[in-house]
Amino acid sequence: MAVTEEKPDGAERAACCSLYHQAIELIGKRWTGAILLVLMDGALHFSEIRDLVPDISDRLLSERLKELESEAIVERRVIDGAPVRVEYSLTAKGAALEPVVRSLKSWAHEWRD
Amino acid sequence: MAVTEEKPDGAERAACCSLYHQAIELIGKRWTGAILLVLMDGALHFSEIRDLVPDISDRLLSERLKELESEAIVERRVIDGAPVRVEYSLTAKGAALEPVVRSLKSWAHEWRD
Repeated sequence: MAVTEEKPDGAERAACCSLYHQAIELIGKRWTGAILLVLMDGALHFSEIRDLVPDISDRLLSERLKELESEAIVERRVIDGAPVRVEYSLTAKGAALEPVVRSLKSWAHEWRD
Repeated sequence: MAVTEEKPDGAERAACCSLYHQAIELIGKRWTGAILLVLMDGALHFSEIRDLVPDISDRLLSERLKELESEAIVERRVIDGAPVRVEYSLTAKGAALEPVVRSLKSWAHEWRD
């Protein structure tokens, strides 16, 4: 086995790993991945997200949506009217996670079913 | 916005979500994603993984490798000799995560750099 020859130098690997490492732990945080998945098909109201993500509490959903907003992955839009409605959707940065979410969903169905 | 028409029925979404939900929280668990990434390029010894995953302790690396073994994502191989060496590599199930890891790495570099 020629592990040594094939390995890039440590420094290069570590730098690469840090950005990826933060990203995987961001999307893998409890409920975050599920919220991203349900938003992939388009904007939703708060209550719609809650209904599509089983067992999430209002408090936790609200907290996760704020985190995703602060990462510019989700945007919150207030729609005038009576009553005022609030809609959540993915930004371009959030939508760019689609290949990750789709390939993980395929993997889960193929290997964990 | 035609969210309602485009949505599959709730039951179908929920079932789908559950497998995916477990998968994303498995790979997003602290350090797990980083361990998977460094193993994508081939088998490694324990100390090599530790050197490539910054700031992980021996105890946590050992715990994560055991979890990944119990999920049949990583396999542990003892190589006879003096001293005996232990090598960790991805199983077919683990290697099948490559599109997820690669696309998340691209996303991280494009959007979080």
